[in-house]
Formats: sequence, structure tokens, C-alpha cells
Amino acid sequence: MSLAAQLTGDVTAIGYGLAAIGPGIGIGLVFGHGVQAIARQPEMFQLLRQQIILGLVFAEALAIIGLVMPIVYKKM
Amino acid sequence: MSLAAQLTGDVTAIGYGLAAIGPGIGIGLVFGHGVQAIARQPEMFQLLRQQIILGLVFAEALAIIGLVMPIVYKKM
Amino acid sequence: MSLAAQLTGDVTAIGYGLAAIGPGIGIGLVFGHGVQAIARQPEMFQLLRQQIILGLVFAEALAIIGLVMPIVYKKM
Amino acid sequence: MSLAAQLTGDVTAIGYGLAAIGPGIGIGLVFGHGVQAIARQPEMFQLLRQQIILGLVFAEALAIIGLVMPIVYKKM
Amino acid sequence: MSLAAQLTGDVTAIGYGLAAIGPGIGIGLVFGHGVQAIARQPEMFQLLRQQIILGLVFAEALAIIGLVMPIVYKKM
Repeated sequence: MSLAAQLTGDVTAIGYGLAAIGPGIGIGLVFGHGVQAIARQPEMFQLLRQQIILGLVFAEALAIIGLVMPIVYKKM
Repeated sequence: MSLAAQLTGDVTAIGYGLAAIGPGIGIGLVFGHGVQAIARQPEMFQLLRQQIILGLVFAEALAIIGLVMPIVYKKM
Repeated sequence: MSLAAQLTGDVTAIGYGLAAIGPGIGIGLVFGHGVQAIARQPEMFQLLRQQIILGLVFAEALAIIGLVMPIVYKKM
Repeated sequence: MSLAAQLTGDVTAIGYGLAAIGPGIGIGLVFGHGVQAIARQPEMFQLLRQQIILGLVFAEALAIIGLVMPIVYKKM
Repeated sequence: MSLAAQLTGDVTAIGYGLAAIGPGIGIGLVFGHGVQAIARQPEMFQLLRQQIILGLVFAEALAIIGLVMPIVYKKM
């Protein structure tokens, strides 16, 4: 029986892959709507960019957490 | 039989990965629409930011809950 | 029993596949809204393109991270 | 017991399948919003098309990477 | 034990199924926004149709690639 030699890999890679779906779409939404907001109110660029970066950070954080969780769960 | 040595990892990582999809998209929606609302009504910035942060907290909470649940389930 | 010979492949390929979903949609959102913002405010092209590229980089990064993570997890 | 003879195939095909979801939607978003931007500002056609192609390339790249990754992971 | 007799089929079909999700939505976005753009600027029909077909080709390509990949992976 040679099951192992054929189906290989680390399933934690799937965990990160799933965790990256949402933030990937989320960052697109923040920046997509963000550039339209800047185009509408160019004089508010500083304030709008600040809010865009804030949204980016919270969304990106979810993916980064997904990156380190497999290591954390392994240590427990 | 060497099944274990090839397909490795902790499936709890998949659980967090799934939990991060929704909040990732949700945060993007909150901030994306949020910056457009700020651009449309700049004088309401304080109130709008307050609501954006409120939406962020509830969405982010879902991912954070997904982060600690594997530990809770293990302790039970 | 010949299970192995039939179902083959590396599950880490699924991890990358998942990680590419979000950024793929995200890049589409950034550029889609971006070209509309440029069409609305052509004179702000430099500033808007800068923000579009910024959004692109953060979204694309999530997919690239998904590309190298299987190698990182394997080394641990 | 004859498990193997029934469920066959290479799981890496699933990896590419997943990797094609995001860019597929993303390209649609870029061109969909793109043609509307061109309709709004026909005289900016050259500049807008350039940005549309740029977004297309970065989104399509994610799917193409997903195409070759199974081969790369296999060689490791 | 008769596990095998119950769950049958080739998992590569799942790969193509997943690969068809994104382009399916993407083509819908291109044509959906496209007909709206044509309705807004009827005199630009030739140019807009050209861009719509271009977007269609790149999105459709991702699904067609998913169609032939299982054969390619099998030959390796």
C-alpha cells in the first residue's frame, strides 16, 4: 500500500489560502472605493488616504494572522 | 503504511482560514463605502468614522473568535 | 488495495489556489474602480495611479505569500 | 476493499481551478468598469486602455502562477 | 467494508468546475457593464464592442485552460 507517496503536502497551506481570500477582496474594495472617493473630493486626500490605510491594515491583519496561526497551533 | 508522514498539518488552521473570509470582505465593504460617505459629507467625518469603527469591530470580532475557538474546543 | 495510484498530487497546490481567489478579485476591484476614477478626474491621474498601485501591491502580496508558504511550512 | 478504483484524478487540478476563480472575476471587473470609463471619457481611450491592460496582467498572472505551481511543488 | 462503491468519479472534474466559477461571473460583468456603456454612448459601439470582446477572451481563457489542465498534469 503506497497511499502516502502519492497525495502529499501540508494541509496548513490550505488554512492560509482560505484566510487570504477575504482580505484580498477586502483590500480591493477599500482601495477601489477609495480612489473614487479621492477623485470626488481631491482636497480631502490626506483624510481619505488615512481612512484607506486604516481599512487596509485591519483587512491585511486577518491574512497575516492566518500566516502565523499554524505555527501557534503547533506549539500548543 | 506511511500515510501520516506525508500528509501533515493541523486541520484547525483550515477552521481559522474559513472564519477569516467573511470578515476580510466585510471590513473592505465597511471602509470602502465609508470613505465614499466621508467624501460626500465631509462635515460628518466624526460621526461616520465612529460608525465605520463600529462595523469594523463587529466584523473583526468574528475572525478573532475563529482564532481562539480551536483552543477552547481542545480544552473541553 | 491500490488507493494511491489513483488519487495523486500535492495538496499545497490547493493552498495557493485558495490564496489567489481574493487578490484576483481585489485587483479587479482596484483597477475597475481606478479607471473610473481616472475617467472622472483625468488631471489627478498621477495621484490616482499611485493609490491604485498601492492597493495592487498589498492585494498581490497576499497571493505571493501563499506561493512561498508551503515551502516555509515544510522547513519548520 | 476497492476504494482506489472509484475515486481518481490529480488534486492539483483543484488547485488551478481555485486559482482561476479570483482572476476570472477580477478581469471581469477591470473590463466591465473599463468600458464604462471609456464610454464616459472617449478622448482618454489610450490612457484608460493602458490601465485596463495593466490590471488585466496582474490579475491574469495569479491564474498563470496557479498553472505552473503544481509542477514547481513536485520538483522540490 | 464497501466504502469505494459509494463515492465514485474523477476529482479533476471538480478542478474544472471551480475554474469555471470566476470566468463565468467575470464574463457576466464584462457584458453587463458593456451593454450599459453602449447604451450610454451608442456612437462608440465599434470601440466598446472591441474592448468587451478583449475582456471576454481573457476571462474565457482561464476556464478553457482549466479544461485541458487535467490532461497535462496526467501526462507529466
